[in-house]
Parts: sequence; C-alpha cells; structure tokens
Amino acid sequence: MDTISVLFSGGKDSSLAAILLEPFFDIELVTCNFGIEKSYRGAQESAAQLGFRHRVLTCDVKILEHALEMAMNDGFVNNAINYIHKEVLTSISKESSIVADGIRRDDRVPKLTLADVQSIEAKCGTSYIRPLLGYGRLAVNNLVDRYLICEETDSTSSTSSDYEVELRSLMKVRFGEDAVATIFPKKHIQSHTFMRKRHE
Amino acid sequence: MDTISVLFSGGKDSSLAAILLEPFFDIELVTCNFGIEKSYRGAQESAAQLGFRHRVLTCDVKILEHALEMAMNDGFVNNAINYIHKEVLTSISKESSIVADGIRRDDRVPKLTLADVQSIEAKCGTSYIRPLLGYGRLAVNNLVDRYLICEETDSTSSTSSDYEVELRSLMKVRFGEDAVATIFPKKHIQSHTFMRKRHE
Repeated sequence: MDTISVLFSGGKDSSLAAILLEPFFDIELVTCNFGIEKSYRGAQESAAQLGFRHRVLTCDVKILEHALEMAMNDGFVNNAINYIHKEVLTSISKESSIVADGIRRDDRVPKLTLADVQSIEAKCGTSYIRPLLGYGRLAVNNLVDRYLICEETDSTSSTSSDYEVELRSLMKVRFGEDAVATIFPKKHIQSHTFMRKRHE
Repeated sequence: MDTISVLFSGGKDSSLAAILLEPFFDIELVTCNFGIEKSYRGAQESAAQLGFRHRVLTCDVKILEHALEMAMNDGFVNNAINYIHKEVLTSISKESSIVADGIRRDDRVPKLTLADVQSIEAKCGTSYIRPLLGYGRLAVNNLVDRYLICEETDSTSSTSSDYEVELRSLMKVRFGEDAVATIFPKKHIQSHTFMRKRHE
C-alpha cells in the first residue's frame, strides 16, 4: 500500500478523511508547525486516539509572517488562511508523493481552486487527494457520528492545531489583542477528536 | 451500515467509487435504463465481477426525449448528458436516502454545479456523495490499477451502459446515422470492468 500524508489538525474533518483513506493507503498524519506555539499537541493526542502514526512538519515561519501581512492588509483572515494552506500543501508535497487533507464540499476556507491544485500537483509531481470533497454536511456528520467522539472547542483552545492558533499568536505579539479581536471572527467553533469508535 | 445507491455504468470510475465506499456503506449498484436498449447488461456483468448487488432503475423515457431535443438544438451532447445525469440523480434520490456516482475531479461531463447538487439534496432530502470528486487523474488511475482489470471499449460497444448508448440509439431512429455521426464525438473511449483484484 502507498503511504499517504494526511494534513491533520486533530479536528473531525481531517480525522474522518484519514478513516476514509485507511482501507486503501498506509496513513501518516502530518501537522504543520511554524515554531511559534506548540499547537500540534492537540493533534498528537487525537492521532494517538485514532491509532495512526503522526509527525510534525516544521514549516518556514516566513509563510506565517506573509499570512499575517495579508490578514492585516485585508482586515480579515480568509485569504491568509488559504495562503497558508497552499504553502503547507506545497511543503508537504516536496517530501510525500501522495498528500491529502480534510477539506469538505461545503467548506469555504481553506479551499484551493482547481488551477491551484493542478499547479501544486504538476510542480511537485504529487497527487493531492481530498477524500471529503464529494461529501456534503449531512453525509460528513453521519460518518463523524459513526466513527468519532469529538469535543467542540473554540479557536483559542489548547487542543486546537489549526493554522489559526499560530497566526493569532503572532498577530497578538506584533499588533496586540485588539488587532486579533478585530480581524478574527468573534466565535469560531472547532472540533477536537477525543475518541474513535470502532465497528469491527 | 447505511445503504448507498451508487449510479453504475460498469466503467472503471463508478466501479472504483463503489470500492472506496464499500468499507463504510452497504453498497447497491444502480444502472438507469430508458427502455430503448438493454444497455444495462454490461453493467450487470461488471457488478457480478465486483461482487455487489445490482438493480436496473427504469427511468421515464421523456428524460431521454428531452435530452435528444437538447442535443439536436445544441449540435453537441454535453448539456444533454448533464441533463440526463441530473434527472437520473433526482429519480434515484426519490427512493434512496444516500446516493453516489463516479464523477471525478477532472471530469467535465456529466458534472453538476454545487447549486444543482444542493438543490437535489434539499428537494429529495437525500445525501449525494461523489467519492472521487477529490481525486485527480493520477490518483484514480493508481487505484484502478490496484483494484480492477478493465477493458477499453468505444461507446458503441455492447458492454457500455453509459447514458450515451440509449441517446445514440434514439437519435439514430429519429434522425438517422448522419445526425449521430455529426453530434457525437468521433471517438469516445469508455471502460468496462472486467475483473476485480482483491488484496486481502
């Protein structure tokens, strides 16, 4: 079986993506980190619960610096998060020939255009698979209920390993709490995989 | 496990879609037929090779009639094929609460817009899953090689169960061979699943 590197935040979507790929690939979960915060810890715990091997991919902090600049210019974080996702996918694609993530059909951010996806694949010679792209909200929720026990958390929680955690952190250091409060959405609920239900 | 009705042409894409769903759903393959030709026979054979149960869904021939009108007006078949796919999805969604097909990321036809997909889901209260939507050509080909032995056929082959077979047939009866030769692409290679490779 080919190894697939699944970008993993510890949340329900990337957990479900790995479960859907498991019968067909050798799964390796990968959480990116920019060295600002040890925000990969929540993902590490979730990976252990799921029973998949996990590693942290250290990414160039310049990516986060550039994303911060984008967010400050835009006054909102969507483009910055998309940019981080594209750069992280490119980084992991340099060392893995098959990569995946937990992007769903109904997600708006991060979501790359087909042109961006094809450009990463062509540039890096990789296959980028999005197992949940053909799944709507209801279908995802039903599978999550079947296979996972998740906690809802907010983005400031210590269990979240989303890009947002380090972006928020860097913004706070450079521009203060007020900038964070203005630029980030007021309440952003995330999930943390707490346990895997097995049906064997 | 929930039953999922997978629209099935007997080709490699819908075969692979069913294989990817198999660990998570109870699979039923469904091939639509308009009563013009027994073009479901190829799909029946492939379903038996795959080891999934299979049924033929008789669809209203008015759908095919309207598609024929579209193709004759347009001078090409893309919109007509898309229309058939949307109507067939709606038909199957009236009797199955979870439906799927083998549409890939790089397919152009048939491919519904997100708005069409959400409208079918809302109208019929169904989940429409496209397991290959997040897979590019290379990833699909690698999985097909791993799990299937396929024959390449052209669209006039007796093993093809694509919508095209009956549309072609009806066009020939109504407008003659010349219309078919003008409106259909010169060469349209399709695939027929001949055998399943198991790796257990």
